[in-house]
Amino acid sequence: MPTPAAPVMSAPEVSAYLDEVFPQIKANGDSISVMDVSHGTALVRLDADERHVRPGGTVSGPTLFMLADLAAYAVILAHIGRVALAVTTNLNINFLMKPEPGPLDATATILKLGKRLVVTDIGIRDLRGDLVAQATATYSIPPREG
Amino acid sequence: MPTPAAPVMSAPEVSAYLDEVFPQIKANGDSISVMDVSHGTALVRLDADERHVRPGGTVSGPTLFMLADLAAYAVILAHIGRVALAVTTNLNINFLMKPEPGPLDATATILKLGKRLVVTDIGIRDLRGDLVAQATATYSIPPREG
Amino acid sequence: MPTPAAPVMSAPEVSAYLDEVFPQIKANGDSISVMDVSHGTALVRLDADERHVRPGGTVSGPTLFMLADLAAYAVILAHIGRVALAVTTNLNINFLMKPEPGPLDATATILKLGKRLVVTDIGIRDLRGDLVAQATATYSIPPREG
Amino acid sequence: MPTPAAPVMSAPEVSAYLDEVFPQIKANGDSISVMDVSHGTALVRLDADERHVRPGGTVSGPTLFMLADLAAYAVILAHIGRVALAVTTNLNINFLMKPEPGPLDATATILKLGKRLVVTDIGIRDLRGDLVAQATATYSIPPREG
Repeated sequence: MPTPAAPVMSAPEVSAYLDEVFPQIKANGDSISVMDVSHGTALVRLDADERHVRPGGTVSGPTLFMLADLAAYAVILAHIGRVALAVTTNLNINFLMKPEPGPLDATATILKLGKRLVVTDIGIRDLRGDLVAQATATYSIPPREG
Repeated sequence: MPTPAAPVMSAPEVSAYLDEVFPQIKANGDSISVMDVSHGTALVRLDADERHVRPGGTVSGPTLFMLADLAAYAVILAHIGRVALAVTTNLNINFLMKPEPGPLDATATILKLGKRLVVTDIGIRDLRGDLVAQATATYSIPPREG
Repeated sequence: MPTPAAPVMSAPEVSAYLDEVFPQIKANGDSISVMDVSHGTALVRLDADERHVRPGGTVSGPTLFMLADLAAYAVILAHIGRVALAVTTNLNINFLMKPEPGPLDATATILKLGKRLVVTDIGIRDLRGDLVAQATATYSIPPREG
Repeated sequence: MPTPAAPVMSAPEVSAYLDEVFPQIKANGDSISVMDVSHGTALVRLDADERHVRPGGTVSGPTLFMLADLAAYAVILAHIGRVALAVTTNLNINFLMKPEPGPLDATATILKLGKRLVVTDIGIRDLRGDLVAQATATYSIPPREG
């Protein structure tokens, strides 16, 4: 099996870049941290609270989508550098369990790193390690200069 | 082609119910209105503003996801009544254009109204009528009493 | 709402081209016809028979996938010409009813015609007009010469 | 992380059952084998040949879909027993590389084993171990007797 490429940005560098290009995340009060980046993967944590729940008191679908999409963005930034204008073209998400508020860990893995498209898989787990959502996201990468 | 069922709740009734079960939407300051419900469809409008943008100044993916998911929820409520605990099991979204902030209209259509699963299609258009995102969402419906 | 582009190939031209580049379809004995192409759409019919059924006697998922994928290919060919190497990058399909063998009509509609990606929606209906499956497919288009 | 359940059918038992309920696979001449089943996973191999190719000489999308769908079916049978009428409700597939004809290995993993819905992830690799397609499939399980 082919070895994934090494990251070109560290977890703190990706975090700082997200703060810079997505000031809304902090303005919105969301607590999101890039915990780790490694060969082909990134781990992003959200501390979900009362603002993220839906009827029934569990974390809402849009919150899980946002976390999955952000983890995909983080793993792409980590591996190809500062491309703020990379955009999601498709995201498919399966909601498997209804998580309680609390820390949620999204692990994004690069499935394909093409010149124009990057395909990623994202699994979101709660503190017990239960898989609460699984997604695949495709990002379109703007042309880069030689 | 079979005729879709008539709605059992009106647009204002769905709006009022959403306000009741999703107080976060208003608390978050989002301006979302159920504009219309009809046989098998619902029209939900979001006034996207600066809080909804991503790098590049266009409306973010999570915002479009939230609107698509909410429009699907609205069309289901409108046709089967107050089932707050209906939950999304799968949502697939294609992002087609990067919309500017402003009014975005999501039209959700019921593709299948089963006893346990409801499948919906959602198209989101900007003021010019351009299709900016398209999604399909599946909801699981909790058992109802006879 | 913007007017979709006019097709550049007729239904018989798309049919003849499919026969040329996909000889397996005929070799496999499948009866597939491009019935119509129009602004942004194509209609492709499959006569599903005993070879296409699954346990329970209804038409199998792979058969419906194949029809959806082929209808997407047909609408793309019809609108951008002979690009045999256009390839599916993503296909999401919802199976809504279990159709009996017999004619199945797939209507493919172009949602976005980009330079690199084309996004299509496909609805498959049986003879009664019931929607049996709905799909969205993204194709990657190889670079074309000026 | 929770331990997945042990399978209730062996690989040869699943193979024999597939031959029984899907006689078309053999009639069609497809060479498909259930190689292994384990806690929460199944490995299914297809020997793709000339009948499975598309323009360009690589294995077609419908072939990869069929393999993904069958591997999902196999892992479900292996873990809940002979439920021929389990049906796919949704399948999302990303095509990552264009594989040459030859052996293709699909590994299906159960993400959620619910009473009514089973969600699976499927990765398809070629002989070199390169990931050529990734899919998620949801199956609806008919009610079982106590």
